[in-house]
Amino acid sequence: MATKYVYLFKDADGSNKALFGGKGANLAEMTKLGMPVPQGFTITTEACTKYWADGEVIDKEIEDQIFNALHEVEAMAGKKFGDIENPFLVSVRSGARASMPGMMDTILNLGLNDVSVEGLSNLTKNPRFAYDCYRRFIQMYSDVVMGVGKSEFEKIIDDVKNEKGVKMDTELDADDMKELIKRFKAMYKENQGSDFPQDPAVQLIGAVKAVFRSWNNPRAITYRRMNDIPSSWGTAVNVQSMVFGNMGDTSGTGVAFTRNPATGEKKLFGEYLMNAQGEDVVAGIRTPEPIDHLKSTNPEVYKQFVDIATKLENHYRDMQDMEFTIERGRLYMLQTRNGKRTASAALKIAVDLVNEGMISIDEALLKIEPKQLDSLLHPTFNAAEVKKAKPVAKGLPASPGAACGKIAFSAEEAVARAKYGEKVVLVRLETSPEDIEGMAVAQGILTARGGMTSHAAVVARGMGACCVAGCGALKFDEENGVLYIDGNKYTREDYLSFDGSTGNIYAGQLKTEEPNVEGDFKTIMDWADKYRVLKIRTNADTPKDAKQAVQFGAEGIGLCRTEHMFFAEDRIPAIREMIIASNEEARIKALLKLLPMQKQDFMGLYEAMGDRPVTIRFLDPPLHEFLPQKKEDIESLAIDMNITYSDLKNKVDSLHEVNPMLGHRGCRLSVTYPEIAVMQTTAVIEAAIELNKKGYNIKPEIMIPLICEIEELKYVKKIIVDTAESVMAKNNVRVDYKVGTMIEIPRAALTAEDIAKEAEFFSFGTNDLSQMTFGFSRDDAAKFLDSYYVKKVFESDPFTKLDTVGVGKLMKIAIEGGKATRPDIKLGICGEQGGDPSTIEFCHDIGLNYVSCSPFRVPAARLAAAQANIKNPRK
Amino acid sequence: MATKYVYLFKDADGSNKALFGGKGANLAEMTKLGMPVPQGFTITTEACTKYWADGEVIDKEIEDQIFNALHEVEAMAGKKFGDIENPFLVSVRSGARASMPGMMDTILNLGLNDVSVEGLSNLTKNPRFAYDCYRRFIQMYSDVVMGVGKSEFEKIIDDVKNEKGVKMDTELDADDMKELIKRFKAMYKENQGSDFPQDPAVQLIGAVKAVFRSWNNPRAITYRRMNDIPSSWGTAVNVQSMVFGNMGDTSGTGVAFTRNPATGEKKLFGEYLMNAQGEDVVAGIRTPEPIDHLKSTNPEVYKQFVDIATKLENHYRDMQDMEFTIERGRLYMLQTRNGKRTASAALKIAVDLVNEGMISIDEALLKIEPKQLDSLLHPTFNAAEVKKAKPVAKGLPASPGAACGKIAFSAEEAVARAKYGEKVVLVRLETSPEDIEGMAVAQGILTARGGMTSHAAVVARGMGACCVAGCGALKFDEENGVLYIDGNKYTREDYLSFDGSTGNIYAGQLKTEEPNVEGDFKTIMDWADKYRVLKIRTNADTPKDAKQAVQFGAEGIGLCRTEHMFFAEDRIPAIREMIIASNEEARIKALLKLLPMQKQDFMGLYEAMGDRPVTIRFLDPPLHEFLPQKKEDIESLAIDMNITYSDLKNKVDSLHEVNPMLGHRGCRLSVTYPEIAVMQTTAVIEAAIELNKKGYNIKPEIMIPLICEIEELKYVKKIIVDTAESVMAKNNVRVDYKVGTMIEIPRAALTAEDIAKEAEFFSFGTNDLSQMTFGFSRDDAAKFLDSYYVKKVFESDPFTKLDTVGVGKLMKIAIEGGKATRPDIKLGICGEQGGDPSTIEFCHDIGLNYVSCSPFRVPAARLAAAQANIKNPRK
Repeated sequence: MATKYVYLFKDADGSNKALFGGKGANLAEMTKLGMPVPQGFTITTEACTKYWADGEVIDKEIEDQIFNALHEVEAMAGKKFGDIENPFLVSVRSGARASMPGMMDTILNLGLNDVSVEGLSNLTKNPRFAYDCYRRFIQMYSDVVMGVGKSEFEKIIDDVKNEKGVKMDTELDADDMKELIKRFKAMYKENQGSDFPQDPAVQLIGAVKAVFRSWNNPRAITYRRMNDIPSSWGTAVNVQSMVFGNMGDTSGTGVAFTRNPATGEKKLFGEYLMNAQGEDVVAGIRTPEPIDHLKSTNPEVYKQFVDIATKLENHYRDMQDMEFTIERGRLYMLQTRNGKRTASAALKIAVDLVNEGMISIDEALLKIEPKQLDSLLHPTFNAAEVKKAKPVAKGLPASPGAACGKIAFSAEEAVARAKYGEKVVLVRLETSPEDIEGMAVAQGILTARGGMTSHAAVVARGMGACCVAGCGALKFDEENGVLYIDGNKYTREDYLSFDGSTGNIYAGQLKTEEPNVEGDFKTIMDWADKYRVLKIRTNADTPKDAKQAVQFGAEGIGLCRTEHMFFAEDRIPAIREMIIASNEEARIKALLKLLPMQKQDFMGLYEAMGDRPVTIRFLDPPLHEFLPQKKEDIESLAIDMNITYSDLKNKVDSLHEVNPMLGHRGCRLSVTYPEIAVMQTTAVIEAAIELNKKGYNIKPEIMIPLICEIEELKYVKKIIVDTAESVMAKNNVRVDYKVGTMIEIPRAALTAEDIAKEAEFFSFGTNDLSQMTFGFSRDDAAKFLDSYYVKKVFESDPFTKLDTVGVGKLMKIAIEGGKATRPDIKLGICGEQGGDPSTIEFCHDIGLNYVSCSPFRVPAARLAAAQANIKNPRK
Repeated sequence: MATKYVYLFKDADGSNKALFGGKGANLAEMTKLGMPVPQGFTITTEACTKYWADGEVIDKEIEDQIFNALHEVEAMAGKKFGDIENPFLVSVRSGARASMPGMMDTILNLGLNDVSVEGLSNLTKNPRFAYDCYRRFIQMYSDVVMGVGKSEFEKIIDDVKNEKGVKMDTELDADDMKELIKRFKAMYKENQGSDFPQDPAVQLIGAVKAVFRSWNNPRAITYRRMNDIPSSWGTAVNVQSMVFGNMGDTSGTGVAFTRNPATGEKKLFGEYLMNAQGEDVVAGIRTPEPIDHLKSTNPEVYKQFVDIATKLENHYRDMQDMEFTIERGRLYMLQTRNGKRTASAALKIAVDLVNEGMISIDEALLKIEPKQLDSLLHPTFNAAEVKKAKPVAKGLPASPGAACGKIAFSAEEAVARAKYGEKVVLVRLETSPEDIEGMAVAQGILTARGGMTSHAAVVARGMGACCVAGCGALKFDEENGVLYIDGNKYTREDYLSFDGSTGNIYAGQLKTEEPNVEGDFKTIMDWADKYRVLKIRTNADTPKDAKQAVQFGAEGIGLCRTEHMFFAEDRIPAIREMIIASNEEARIKALLKLLPMQKQDFMGLYEAMGDRPVTIRFLDPPLHEFLPQKKEDIESLAIDMNITYSDLKNKVDSLHEVNPMLGHRGCRLSVTYPEIAVMQTTAVIEAAIELNKKGYNIKPEIMIPLICEIEELKYVKKIIVDTAESVMAKNNVRVDYKVGTMIEIPRAALTAEDIAKEAEFFSFGTNDLSQMTFGFSRDDAAKFLDSYYVKKVFESDPFTKLDTVGVGKLMKIAIEGGKATRPDIKLGICGEQGGDPSTIEFCHDIGLNYVSCSPFRVPAARLAAAQANIKNPRK
């Protein structure tokens, strides 16, 4: 039997969103619940995927099914397509499995032609309305189906208004509309070389194809990538009888939510306009009435609507977002769906629904989008102020929050001015590791170059600092301390405000509001903690970050990047001295200068974390990152270091690498310079000893990066163990420490069975593991990944969301190998993806013990971990 | 029961080289065969590995076993250790599973002390001999066991000779020897703080430890790495009764081979000296007699020796290398082993042994080291001339062969001068892709910088051209056309000769000899072809290379790197034009200039290969490789291209990548610029059509590089198929072509099951696959890999010999996945390692269909493939 691709609303399965899309499924469900839904049919998502697979062609079989369904709906409505007496008109709307508001195309009033427009006019006794519908349909159809530019039509409208000497569309009468229709059709013919299609059947197939096509328009592709929606899903198409809210004073249209989508308050919330169509509500020319108002003006309809709303919320057990139309006093439901809501509303609604006994706690937890939580953890701009303010530029929303301060042009400047209590924002062409201190004291970071994974963006997210990156509109005249935006001048004395969640940049000061993590937030977090089995750790390099993370619920540090400690102004001279040392003795001398500082670093972290586990990764980056690269910087450093320019230049050159990502870094440094590992181990153990004397119970976890071969791990571990033993012997105490490794090179994953002989824990470094598994350099891939998205080769960024297929397979191989050798091996992840909810679900499913993410992603991670365990409970 | 670590020769198992080492096993075997072997015992390799595992300590149990064995041997000999009457003396020699000549330590005359030296003197009635033995023993022992420097002893000898007014050691008498002994012992005490050990038992344990230790001396580690010997094997130690060839005119010592090791001729070959010790033969003061001479002077011993030699060759069924000593008319066999031989001797001996019915063909094939064949394929210097010549410098032996020509300082110069028939050698600081034409016309390439995997080395090996790289002694004054070596001046008019197999560089002209690949060579190759199942293809980019490879037996091209074609002087302007093009139209215009040239390229290759398969890889390197990087070069190119400097500089900058290996290259170029794939496909198909018209049957294989995801392959394959179809339709013919992919990114291997849905063949690109699996950059890894070898973290270079553990595991995953989807998928390898015999064995074992290597490695690959199938026959 042939596949059924077209279903009447009354025959479709309201629970099958995959096949009917969200809108179609809900229309079917409302029909089944006996609610007043204008009837119609849904063309399934399978038809869409077939359309694409067949080379953008609608199968004859499907076309037949469409027309069969159409005839049935005509019969139900008692109207006929293209009829002069009682014309049948339909809307054609997309409807994907997941809501993609505004991303795809919609066509209204389909079925109008030179004949049926007369029918509509007679029927409504409103010729202006009928012709207005027709000219709108021509306009919409030409744009959507045929790609004739909107602006051409706007120009014709302007011409007609000018000729008539009026300003507003509403001032045009029925005859003007006829004139418009005439000119529109002429324009259409000129462009397309054929007449505007009069056959409603032709119109319909054209519209269906247009909706299918719009599944792959650029904005839909971008939206899917941002929301993890696979392109294979396709969209359904809903063909529905038109009802009109603009058939006079007993007609109207509106939108309502069963609860307040901004606050979560349990009260019907919405607005409507009488004698209007949906687009009039949006256009904002007339002010809509609040939904309550309907109670007094049309109590019957209001009561019917409230009943329906209540029934829908109870049925779907979630807050509903509904569209309705009143046609000549009769209520029609056009759509219902779970309503989008702000993060705080999401929390309140979830908690309330549990308290009302409508849903269980696990259902409540599943209703909240973990990524939303982030917005609750940062200062935000006062909503009213933002509404008034006009952005002067826009960059990439690289790290959320709201920042406001005076402009500082360099990290040193930011540090110096912040020391005296000034609130500054760091504004740079781009940032580098040396800017880290300036970034830490600034209210926010704004850069002209670099994308979402640039240094500024990554570090800011790690810090929880607000960052807007890649704002090309910034032009610098640093010498004179001037920043130009769009020709306007900003100096050190000017304030800038910017929003890391939108990328908007404002001149002057905008008021900010502090986050609130009590109340519903706390309730949800407490519930999540009860449901999850994954531990949540944090990536933190400073006591400040560590404390922040603990406050957000972190249960340990999964990654402390010790190199970040070396970039500080008082450290970098010593590390540079070590790098240029020509022998082991000189290197050790330099390292001994770093030892006390490093020890203090670790004591600070241990104190901040209490007895929670702290994983310390040993020096990772290639050494050239600590040396300047530009001639003038090398010259000035040579003077500071009291060596010749050419000696320093030679050193810089000798450290140059063609592919630094794959170069002399990680454990490779410890193999060539074991003394670095000796210093770091000494600091780790001595710091633990000092705190344990004060009653702590510190059990440090030393993590060796970039292992690709068991012999490397053996070699470095021996240095660590020998050093630790000697430090402990000297102090005559024992410290319970562990030595483990990052799994971040494919070969480490492949040989994990061996590696686990020495490693007491594995932490998946999925940043590097993804780079090497894909053969991508994070620093370079942006250049071609855009084409990849456009050409649908990739659907998501593997550095944001873990590639569970390839990288995930390597992880599973590593886990299997690791457990075979050491059944109780501790497994974690500390790459950027560790804070991504879908990645967390995968980490739960494959049996990791913990995920580690930046402090501000800890709450989302707690929730995502709970959701993962609800979906797939771990024994 | 305790493990037995020490075996008397008569109790050991002569077939167990793993336990007793080669020397020990053969001593046991000769003992069993009733041959006159000075008795002794072997300490097993297991004792050595235990020594290292225990932290450089000899277990008490093993020590006891050693002394027990010693007592048994004393009893057999009727002598006693340290005895004044009839002292028992021993030699202590290493003996690993595989022969490592001269790499480890040996101690002779152990057992001598102040007492036993008298016994030896009395017994031999030769005090000078006895005291000479003793002083030599002190010297050797101090050096090997205690590490007291050799030069210190040489100085004392010089002092004594000066005091006596003589020049030669032989002029010193017994008393002088006693004086030396006195001074040696004093020196020893001064250095060690203790007396020279008098207890033979102490001496023995010290010596055994020294031999164990020498297993890990730097030259042994290097030797093992070069010969693929695992460090886990360890060495055995042989303790053997001393016999003396210097006890008068009826004593003597010698070395002989059962066949000529240089030519393979079947005739006893060797030399001996009467009244001498082994070291006298080596020292070259007296001229040894040819072994034949013994026939007339000592016919009985000669006959006995010939009998033994024949018996040994028959027993081991291979040419033997034997050491013997005659002590007072009595023959002793000290050692036998399969003799090392030159490549041509190896071939002759193998063929002769088969013809003599001594071994089968498969045994013969297994006897030849595939790597040796290479030396037979290149010109060599006349041996007599080399013997006379003295190298002026030495570089790395980067690509074998012998080169002689006048110096050319640049590629252009080489091209220009070669055009007029001059023989030139290209001498450069280093080479880059632009030098490729100059390299092709030069007799050989000599560089000052760069290692075995530098551009010069890799390209030269690919071409089969002689190359010596990284010769730091070269100093350039290019402006004046002068090269300095060691202060000497060489100009364009001077000849240099250099040997790519030794790295030696000679001033002036050395005669070269052409290779001979007929006769035995051909016989062995024919046999190999019958035994192998792996096909052997070649990596070739030019008709010249392709023809050379066919001559060496290549059965197809496994990799044609199309980018090499674009660096030629007449091509690079067009490719540059394409790169700087700002839109698709301009890019296509530039590509159309390349199309006819590229088509000619492919026609040339097809013609050279006849109907053999040709795999063409599409453009792979990042585009910046085609643009200059230096300011002055950019300036001059901008003028040539008629664009502004800043436009070109911006383009160069925009193409800059932090990690180019992981950058915008391979199929990523075709995704962003599909027009490149269109041009290349057109050339591939049009070239095939033209030749097929002439009666060829060309079936091109198009290979897409750097795939990491099935959607990439789908995208690029569609472009190729669409283009091919349109070209074929235009010409109204069909070409049978295939589209496949490189597997060179870990993710491609991991998702091979998907990839095989589109790919008709896989070719493992193990260069990149190794880089990404290890996280190594080939361009940078040399900087730290040296420490890795020294510290025994790595034992071999994963870019020379495939890492079968990690990379091999990925290959197996890919094969399993590929075959699951497409059971008949064709599988090959085209990385550098594809010419390495151990890699070929692995490729055979995991079921590849072919290996592809550079033309000059084809014969070795044929042999290695045969050996692999003999060891592990494929069904």
